[in-house]
Amino acid sequence: MALDTVQNSDQLVIAGRTFNSRLIIGTGKYKTYEQNAEAAVAAGVDMVTVAIRRVNLTDASQPRLTDHVSPKDYTFLPNTAGCFTAEDAIRTLRLAREAGGWDLVKLEVLSDQKTLYPNMPETLRAAELLIKEGFQVMVYCSDDPVYAKKLEDAGCCAIMPLGSLIGSGLGIMNPVNIRLIVEQTRVPVIVDAGVGTASDAAVAMELGCDGVLMNTAIAEAKDPVLMASAMKHAVIAGRQSYLAGRMPKKRYADPSSPLAGLI
Amino acid sequence: MALDTVQNSDQLVIAGRTFNSRLIIGTGKYKTYEQNAEAAVAAGVDMVTVAIRRVNLTDASQPRLTDHVSPKDYTFLPNTAGCFTAEDAIRTLRLAREAGGWDLVKLEVLSDQKTLYPNMPETLRAAELLIKEGFQVMVYCSDDPVYAKKLEDAGCCAIMPLGSLIGSGLGIMNPVNIRLIVEQTRVPVIVDAGVGTASDAAVAMELGCDGVLMNTAIAEAKDPVLMASAMKHAVIAGRQSYLAGRMPKKRYADPSSPLAGLI
Amino acid sequence: MALDTVQNSDQLVIAGRTFNSRLIIGTGKYKTYEQNAEAAVAAGVDMVTVAIRRVNLTDASQPRLTDHVSPKDYTFLPNTAGCFTAEDAIRTLRLAREAGGWDLVKLEVLSDQKTLYPNMPETLRAAELLIKEGFQVMVYCSDDPVYAKKLEDAGCCAIMPLGSLIGSGLGIMNPVNIRLIVEQTRVPVIVDAGVGTASDAAVAMELGCDGVLMNTAIAEAKDPVLMASAMKHAVIAGRQSYLAGRMPKKRYADPSSPLAGLI
Amino acid sequence: MALDTVQNSDQLVIAGRTFNSRLIIGTGKYKTYEQNAEAAVAAGVDMVTVAIRRVNLTDASQPRLTDHVSPKDYTFLPNTAGCFTAEDAIRTLRLAREAGGWDLVKLEVLSDQKTLYPNMPETLRAAELLIKEGFQVMVYCSDDPVYAKKLEDAGCCAIMPLGSLIGSGLGIMNPVNIRLIVEQTRVPVIVDAGVGTASDAAVAMELGCDGVLMNTAIAEAKDPVLMASAMKHAVIAGRQSYLAGRMPKKRYADPSSPLAGLI
Repeated sequence: MALDTVQNSDQLVIAGRTFNSRLIIGTGKYKTYEQNAEAAVAAGVDMVTVAIRRVNLTDASQPRLTDHVSPKDYTFLPNTAGCFTAEDAIRTLRLAREAGGWDLVKLEVLSDQKTLYPNMPETLRAAELLIKEGFQVMVYCSDDPVYAKKLEDAGCCAIMPLGSLIGSGLGIMNPVNIRLIVEQTRVPVIVDAGVGTASDAAVAMELGCDGVLMNTAIAEAKDPVLMASAMKHAVIAGRQSYLAGRMPKKRYADPSSPLAGLI
Repeated sequence: MALDTVQNSDQLVIAGRTFNSRLIIGTGKYKTYEQNAEAAVAAGVDMVTVAIRRVNLTDASQPRLTDHVSPKDYTFLPNTAGCFTAEDAIRTLRLAREAGGWDLVKLEVLSDQKTLYPNMPETLRAAELLIKEGFQVMVYCSDDPVYAKKLEDAGCCAIMPLGSLIGSGLGIMNPVNIRLIVEQTRVPVIVDAGVGTASDAAVAMELGCDGVLMNTAIAEAKDPVLMASAMKHAVIAGRQSYLAGRMPKKRYADPSSPLAGLI
Repeated sequence: MALDTVQNSDQLVIAGRTFNSRLIIGTGKYKTYEQNAEAAVAAGVDMVTVAIRRVNLTDASQPRLTDHVSPKDYTFLPNTAGCFTAEDAIRTLRLAREAGGWDLVKLEVLSDQKTLYPNMPETLRAAELLIKEGFQVMVYCSDDPVYAKKLEDAGCCAIMPLGSLIGSGLGIMNPVNIRLIVEQTRVPVIVDAGVGTASDAAVAMELGCDGVLMNTAIAEAKDPVLMASAMKHAVIAGRQSYLAGRMPKKRYADPSSPLAGLI
Repeated sequence: MALDTVQNSDQLVIAGRTFNSRLIIGTGKYKTYEQNAEAAVAAGVDMVTVAIRRVNLTDASQPRLTDHVSPKDYTFLPNTAGCFTAEDAIRTLRLAREAGGWDLVKLEVLSDQKTLYPNMPETLRAAELLIKEGFQVMVYCSDDPVYAKKLEDAGCCAIMPLGSLIGSGLGIMNPVNIRLIVEQTRVPVIVDAGVGTASDAAVAMELGCDGVLMNTAIAEAKDPVLMASAMKHAVIAGRQSYLAGRMPKKRYADPSSPLAGLI
C-alpha cells in the first residue's frame, strides 16, 4: 500500500464498524473527566472503553463521564473490569445494553486482585453466553494461542491478548505468542494491557496487530495528554512500519559462528 | 511542557540553527533520487545528510541529487562516509565547503569495511582539526561515554553515537551507554546508525536523545516512502513520550523476591 | 544454606521421591540409544522422560531403550508426547502403568502439530481423571499462572510450564509469568520446553524454579554428550545462584532519570 | 572435542601460563580475608586479581590477604583499580613487580568515579609503556572492537572487555561487540566487569570468550561462597555449551512473516 492509500483508507474494521484510529483508550485513573477528554482528543481515538460499574453515566448531581467524553463523539465500548466470574461479567454487560444500547462490548473475566490475569475458561464461557445473547464481543485474553483460537471459533469479533499484566507497563513480554495469534486469527487482534511507553505500542503494531488498547500508560504518565499524543503517533508509526516491511537484521560477523543464534 | 507547546516550540537547535524535525535521513541506497525525494517529504525532515564523495551534485549530464532534493528545501549535511583516516575526512569536507559553502558537517572516520565501526582516536583528531578550520562538526562516534565527552570538549556541536553497527538494523544495543551520554552532554545527542524499525527510533528518543539519523532502515524497507512516514511518527512518539514521563514499571509480585532483579 | 549443605542436602522432592539432580532429560531425537545413555551419564540425571508410544521398550528383536538406559539406574517418567486429547493421553499412561508399573507420569496434551502448544482445558481434564486413577501427575502446561493454580489444586505433583515452544530453543520468553507461578506454587515447578542453551537453563533456575526438563537442546546440539554436561553445570549454577542471592543491579546514572524505567 | 577431552585438556593459556579454571575472581569487597579465601576455593580458581594499592600484603600487624589467599596457591594478578592516568597505573605496577616479582598484570585506566568506564587512549598508552618495560599486560577495556585490536597489536596478552559498567551487575549489554572482539582476537578474550549472576557468566562464555573475571557479583551476593560455587559451574556450563554447539533457534511460524526479524 502506498503512503497516501494507507493514510486515506487503512481502517480498522470490527464487527462491521469502521474506525480511523487503531488506538483505543480507557476512561479510568484520570484526575478528572476533563483530562480524560483532552487525552482522547490528543490520542485521536474513535473509541473509548468504559468500566461500566465504576463510571458515573447517569447521576446528574455528580460529575459524569458523558458530559466530557460524549457517546456522540466516541464509540463507547463497555467493559467488565472488576468482574471475576462469567455471571458477573454477563450481568454487567446486560445493564450496559439496557442503559446505553451498547452491544459491542469488551469482555474481561479476571482471576485475582493481585495479577488481574484473565481467567480463560470463565472468559470463554462468558463469551459463548454473551454471543448467544447477541452481543458483539471483543475479548481480553492471555497470549495463549490455543485459547485465542477457541475464542475466535466461539464468534468473538476481536481477540485482545495481554502484552503483560494489566497496569504493569512491562510491554510485550512474549512477542512469539502475539505473533502466533496474529498469524492464525481472521478477526482483528488488539493488544490490551501491558503497554508502558510509546515504543511498546509501536512494537505491538510491528508484530502485525490491528490495534492497541491502553489505559494506565496514558493516565499515569506525568503528562497524560502529551502521552496520549505520543501514543497516537506510536500506533501510526508501528502500523506503517509493519506495512512498509522492515529491512532485514544483519550481523556483520562470521555467519558460521554461534553469533547467529545469539542475537 | 503542554502538548500544544511541544507541538509549536519543541525544536532541535544545532550550532545555532533551528530544526522543526528531529529526524535526519540519508541520501544513499535509494533506487532513484525521486524516491529519495519522496521519502524526505514523507519523513518530514529539515535536514538530509549527503555522502559527498558518492553523490553527484554537479555533473548535469547525469542524474543529480540536487535536482530532486534541493538545498533550497533542506539543510544539506555533508558527511564523510567511506573515509578511513582523519586526512581523508578533512579533505572531503574541505571540498564540500568549497562546492556548496557547507560548514555544518557530519564527520565519520571508520575503521574497516566489515564493521564500519568508528575509529575513535582518528575521529577525535579529525574533529579537532576541522573545528580549528571553522567547521561545525556533528560527530559519528561509538557509544563510549568517555570519548563522547572528549568530542564535546573539543567543540563538536552534536554527539552522534551508534545504536548498533551501520546498516545492521539491530536497534539500540546498549541503552545504558546512550543514556550516560545523554545525561552528560550539553549539545544535542543524536543516535546515528543501527535503527532498523520504527520502535527502535522511538526507543532512542525515549532515552532522551535529541534526534535520530538513519538511512538503511528507510532506503532498504520494502516501501521506503511508507517507512519514512513511519519514522516521522516514531520520532515524534518517542520525543513526546520522553517529555510526558512514562508510568513506572510494576511487577505485581513479592517485592522481596529475586524477581526485582530479573526484569 | 551454606555451600556444603547445598551440595549435600539440597534435593528435589516430587511426590515423596527424592532426586539429587534437578535436571530431567528426554529420550528422543538422539542418534542412538548409546548416545542417549552417554548423555544421561554426562547430565548426571536421576530421571529420564520416555515418550511411551514412540520408544521401543519390549521388542527384543529391535534396539531397546532399556538395554542402554535402564529403569534400574534411572527413574522412568512416561510422557504423553504426541497426544492431542485427554483420552489419548490417559490411554497411553494406563498402558505405561501396565507395562512398567509406572505411576509417576508426565502429562502433556497438545493442541496442534505446528506449535505443540499445550491445550490447557484438555490438560486439566486429563489431570483430574488421571489423579482419580491414582497417578502422580507432573503436568506440562502453558505459563498461565491461573491454570497453573488449577492444576496444583487438582492435585498435580509438579507444575511444568513451558519456557517457550517445544523444540524452539528460544529460552524463557516470559520470566514474569514463570516467576508468578514459582511464587504461588507449593509443589515443584519445573521449566519444560524452550531451553536452547546452558544460560537458558541457568536463567530458569535463577527464577526460583525447582528443576528443568529438556530434550532437544541436548539431543540436537552438535555434541550432545558435551552439551549434557554443560546443562548439568548450568542447572547447578542457576540453583546455587538463586540460593546465594544475587547482587542488586545498579545503574550509575541519575536515579531521577527515565533510565530507571529503561533497564 | 569430546567431553573427557574437554574435562582433561581444555585449558586457558595466557602469556604461556596454563590455567585449569577460566574464572578469575577479585580480592575486594569481601567481609574478611577468610571469606575471600573460602570463595576462591569454592570458585575453583587458579588466579586472583589484587588491587595492589588497596590490599595489605606486607604489614604483619594488620590482617594480610596473603595469610589467607596465598601466592603459593594462586597466581596473583596485580591490577590498577583506582588509577585514572597512565602514569598512576604504571607506577602502581612497578611497585607490584618490586614487591612480589609479578609481571603478569591487569591494567585498567579509568575515566571517572561515577561510571569507572575505561579511558581508552590512556589505557592504550599505558599498555604500550608497560609492554616496553617487559610486563605481560592483560587489559581491561571497553567493548570497542577497534580499540581491542589496537591493544592486541600493541602486544597485550589478554583482551578484557567490559560486559557492562564495573559493579553494575547488568550482564552483557552488547553481545554483538563482544562477539566481534572474540572473532578478531588471537589472544584470550576475558569478560571483565558487569557479570551480576550465574547466567551472565554462562552467556559470556557462550559468546566464545575464553574466560570471565568478576568481583562484585560474588563478594556482594548474600552468600558469597555459595555464589562463588555457582560461578564456577556457570563458567564451565557456558564453556562446554559453546564447544558443544547449541541447537538452532526455531520459530514455528510463517517464515515469510516479519516474525523472523522480530525475535
